[in-house]
Amino acid sequence: MHSIPVGVLGASGYAGRELCGLITAHPHCHLAFATANERRGQTLRVRGGDRVHDILMVGHEEAPLDAAALVFSALPHGASVDWVGRVLAAGAKVVDLSSDLRPGRGGSTHPVPDNVPEQVPYGLPELFREGIGHASVVANPGCYPTSILVALAPFVKAGLVAPDGLVSVAAASGVSGAGASPKPELLFAEVTENFRAYGAGNAHRHLPEMTASLQRLGGTFDLLFTPHLLPVDRGILSTITVPLTEAVADPVGVLRAAYAHEPFVEVTDALPALADVVHRNVVRVTAVTVRHVRRPTLTLFAAIDNLVKGAAGQAVQNANLMLGLDETAGLPR
Amino acid sequence: MHSIPVGVLGASGYAGRELCGLITAHPHCHLAFATANERRGQTLRVRGGDRVHDILMVGHEEAPLDAAALVFSALPHGASVDWVGRVLAAGAKVVDLSSDLRPGRGGSTHPVPDNVPEQVPYGLPELFREGIGHASVVANPGCYPTSILVALAPFVKAGLVAPDGLVSVAAASGVSGAGASPKPELLFAEVTENFRAYGAGNAHRHLPEMTASLQRLGGTFDLLFTPHLLPVDRGILSTITVPLTEAVADPVGVLRAAYAHEPFVEVTDALPALADVVHRNVVRVTAVTVRHVRRPTLTLFAAIDNLVKGAAGQAVQNANLMLGLDETAGLPR
Amino acid sequence: MHSIPVGVLGASGYAGRELCGLITAHPHCHLAFATANERRGQTLRVRGGDRVHDILMVGHEEAPLDAAALVFSALPHGASVDWVGRVLAAGAKVVDLSSDLRPGRGGSTHPVPDNVPEQVPYGLPELFREGIGHASVVANPGCYPTSILVALAPFVKAGLVAPDGLVSVAAASGVSGAGASPKPELLFAEVTENFRAYGAGNAHRHLPEMTASLQRLGGTFDLLFTPHLLPVDRGILSTITVPLTEAVADPVGVLRAAYAHEPFVEVTDALPALADVVHRNVVRVTAVTVRHVRRPTLTLFAAIDNLVKGAAGQAVQNANLMLGLDETAGLPR
Amino acid sequence: MHSIPVGVLGASGYAGRELCGLITAHPHCHLAFATANERRGQTLRVRGGDRVHDILMVGHEEAPLDAAALVFSALPHGASVDWVGRVLAAGAKVVDLSSDLRPGRGGSTHPVPDNVPEQVPYGLPELFREGIGHASVVANPGCYPTSILVALAPFVKAGLVAPDGLVSVAAASGVSGAGASPKPELLFAEVTENFRAYGAGNAHRHLPEMTASLQRLGGTFDLLFTPHLLPVDRGILSTITVPLTEAVADPVGVLRAAYAHEPFVEVTDALPALADVVHRNVVRVTAVTVRHVRRPTLTLFAAIDNLVKGAAGQAVQNANLMLGLDETAGLPR
Repeated sequence: MHSIPVGVLGASGYAGRELCGLITAHPHCHLAFATANERRGQTLRVRGGDRVHDILMVGHEEAPLDAAALVFSALPHGASVDWVGRVLAAGAKVVDLSSDLRPGRGGSTHPVPDNVPEQVPYGLPELFREGIGHASVVANPGCYPTSILVALAPFVKAGLVAPDGLVSVAAASGVSGAGASPKPELLFAEVTENFRAYGAGNAHRHLPEMTASLQRLGGTFDLLFTPHLLPVDRGILSTITVPLTEAVADPVGVLRAAYAHEPFVEVTDALPALADVVHRNVVRVTAVTVRHVRRPTLTLFAAIDNLVKGAAGQAVQNANLMLGLDETAGLPR
Repeated sequence: MHSIPVGVLGASGYAGRELCGLITAHPHCHLAFATANERRGQTLRVRGGDRVHDILMVGHEEAPLDAAALVFSALPHGASVDWVGRVLAAGAKVVDLSSDLRPGRGGSTHPVPDNVPEQVPYGLPELFREGIGHASVVANPGCYPTSILVALAPFVKAGLVAPDGLVSVAAASGVSGAGASPKPELLFAEVTENFRAYGAGNAHRHLPEMTASLQRLGGTFDLLFTPHLLPVDRGILSTITVPLTEAVADPVGVLRAAYAHEPFVEVTDALPALADVVHRNVVRVTAVTVRHVRRPTLTLFAAIDNLVKGAAGQAVQNANLMLGLDETAGLPR
Repeated sequence: MHSIPVGVLGASGYAGRELCGLITAHPHCHLAFATANERRGQTLRVRGGDRVHDILMVGHEEAPLDAAALVFSALPHGASVDWVGRVLAAGAKVVDLSSDLRPGRGGSTHPVPDNVPEQVPYGLPELFREGIGHASVVANPGCYPTSILVALAPFVKAGLVAPDGLVSVAAASGVSGAGASPKPELLFAEVTENFRAYGAGNAHRHLPEMTASLQRLGGTFDLLFTPHLLPVDRGILSTITVPLTEAVADPVGVLRAAYAHEPFVEVTDALPALADVVHRNVVRVTAVTVRHVRRPTLTLFAAIDNLVKGAAGQAVQNANLMLGLDETAGLPR
Repeated sequence: MHSIPVGVLGASGYAGRELCGLITAHPHCHLAFATANERRGQTLRVRGGDRVHDILMVGHEEAPLDAAALVFSALPHGASVDWVGRVLAAGAKVVDLSSDLRPGRGGSTHPVPDNVPEQVPYGLPELFREGIGHASVVANPGCYPTSILVALAPFVKAGLVAPDGLVSVAAASGVSGAGASPKPELLFAEVTENFRAYGAGNAHRHLPEMTASLQRLGGTFDLLFTPHLLPVDRGILSTITVPLTEAVADPVGVLRAAYAHEPFVEVTDALPALADVVHRNVVRVTAVTVRHVRRPTLTLFAAIDNLVKGAAGQAVQNANLMLGLDETAGLPR
């Protein structure tokens, strides 16, 4: 098989670096270019498989888009969608890691270029695999939604979530989720030995993406999402309270049945920890029946690496599907 | 005023050390003795106010109980209640930091000594101040319950919490909450860059303490409590989802009205962070109205230092009341 | 005694915040103003003693310099010395926390205003107390030099350090030493689980300050200084290898004799740890004889809080001397 | 090629787990058994390559020693050497990760079994490769010595280190270096935000191993080694002051020349950081000329992952040589 050239727009952010690392270790792809406007001309050191690689970054405008079969856009929200149009115009496929083309568009009102489809497949293969393989553009899901949707979906699809209930999610993310741009509140001295919520009261950009996806699965319940900032580099843990229509005797069994053939979902009896999932393209998930309450209720727990299954790893998973490769190629698990 | 002699049983744990530090800086009390069986004869370095102090620890049996006007028991759950009896027999008052005499007794079935009252005041002064001042024994609340009850109480007392609803608490604590005994899962290498829940599904020892206290305030709703372990030394943040009977226009105003005269409750518009409260005897709390949901719902956030307002500081606050001192004496805020 | 008004220029940096906290808790001083150009009009929350305080920051130009008896300048290196001149012109005394007026001037070539003395006392009271009390300007030492000079001085003064030898210092600092301005390399994700040297080969700005001070004490030896960045918020540990002219039987005794009457130096038999000194205005120091080497050699260890004894606390100590107050007033130890 | 069966004695410690992970990902070997007396019958989750694996641990006595071609002993110092004898008696080769057979024997006086050679090759291939390939037993170096010897060796071999000088090493290690047994001083709450030296004054167990190896390279100088404990999981940084016989114009060039053909040594112009080396079987090293001193002096910096190049990775490197495999097989770099 010939090696397939792929490109990365926005290589200097945390997701971009992770992408470059995964591609350098990919058995069927290689890196055709990596861009970063502010660090153009510099090299970026990434880890791929059991090696490190130094990658030269060029400016976005200098990227030979037509030299790639597929391009990952890890550009900022709002700026990405224009580049999706440019890549398509150059004849390559695109996985867009921004929220610009996700359901709800992350609240963006930035116009979508004419040559970009109004609606593109949402690249969460475990739930919406069909459509990804034949797409020229895929919207890569957000990190929080990936963890939450994978945990909830089997119960939603089975009609087990109370339709008038409130599903309440308390999720916590490492700081790499906030990006590599220096902000005072992300300095080590501000984060170490600290913990706090941000975006309370359903104010988070990821909400429309989740509610649209849950409705697509048949869910009509309300969703409350409260994100927190952890003093760790990477990882997300979502703790999800779910009111049920009826008691579920074996909730872990529901998860196991749903994901028996999914290579990137780990259903477990133990409570998942960040240390179980970092640097791996997996969602690790369990369900626990709540005792001492009148209404049947579950607590779901889902852990992911926000930069792998929550961003770059899932992007490669989508690219594998779009390029006709084995879905698991080049992905750690 | 003469300085009042007080003692500490169980000085070598994290709460015991904190107690010793607070007492050495107390304007009206001094440390009559500090015990630690396994470290008897050793000195313990503690910080009190703007000084450090080296304290000699003796064995529990060697403690001159009758030389103290009041004794703090920071002994382990299960072992504490017998010493409460011994202290009372020696003629001193007791603040018991264990769960042995709290509502629900932390699930303990260890018999209560004959000279210990069946029911003792629950030492959360902001909610249950009366009774503490005249008590000879007070049960000091748990760290998680302190944060959760202070946040919820004003809404419960006002009848605003849906009586058939589920109040869902996702709380996260620093590792000092798990004690100073070496356990493999508390080693630095296991905790750093990690995060996980423990005790899911309403399995935690603190649940009966909270439900009993909420019922006393008039709450009939269900409670779900899910604790998590944070990679920080100290601090608890509780994130609480509250279904309401009706929309509340100014939920922060409800908190402000309730705690206007409480020196140890900080009602704030901003979301509280652990860094705001560590080393201080305060609960920092806010409320946020949840948008995009059908049923009126709030999210409450409460942050405390688990070793201060969640343990030793609150114990000193109770001792101040029991000894007829200013409630705030010797307490950082 | 009337309370003395003091001001802080540059309150929003880490040292400035620490200064504001110390002053709010000071028994004989109060904060007349606090400035921060970029955050003018905002409040700054600081901790002083057992309270927190919200302080309004004004722009530098708006500060009523003549309303203060003494002003602390915590402005950046290079920018500070002009404000020293302005403060003197307004009739107030100054403690300058920048390197602008220290021995060697931190390499600065920025001109010194006419009304500022060419040479000002170096405010390390334990070594150079005389001159500070009568000065109108004092240069507050750097954090690294404070730890190193206090450890070395007794051996230098006694002529015990080999005059032709090399004293080698490996020192490690928490990230607050690098300031509160956001830089990519200070982001949590870059610092956590990491450790590295910076400024190897005697390239650090603090070197001239140390060599000049050591010469003043009689030292003619060479000095090698290698700073490292620790994944902690605050604290410096300096590990110092010292070739001797002769074996020293009781090196800890040399330290004890030198500092017997110093309230802010803790000589100890145990190796000092950062946790021993954070939030305290002390240098904690010990000395260990090196075995298995031909030439008599010591290793010295000195720990400080870089923001307290290494910056704001020492500045208050100097201010106390300049204002005729008890040197220890308002300082935690 | 047939897959080669290898075993691990002491799989539950940090080095043992790392070994199991490396072996599961090794292209030419597989895990025949893994032992851990206290956790016998439990499974151990390890990461190997891009997968996780659950490994059943058996008691040491149950291990089928004769089913392995080579056994790694990651047993504690003192206990290991007896098992080396047993493995040899069973006809397998051994890599001993303990200090029992290293130069100086880590100070151990425990007798060496009759069937174990008095002197075994010291498995630091970059310096002492010959002899390893034909050995039946190899002593795997300590973590600190690996970093220090690789940095120093080229200068020692070239006669550039002053023969009467003192080479002073300040090294800092993550807590995994102290093992997985729970000790109070390794609890998260004791290590976070802390830093301290331990074993000052040349008291460390690793000293004889280093001095013996340096003498073998021709070094007659004195060595001072001061280890420190970092608040990180893994990684060692050694900062080494080296008095020279003469100025060296291009010290990095000396390193580059020495290690041009070594796949596991990275010579770099930049100062190495722990983040550069964790999870990789490399020593990353540089040299900086010290300015402003009379005697020609260098500072060397060497970073390794204490569990990989400092333990398990180097052990696999030695095993590859002993089994006639490619030295780099199965090793991340």
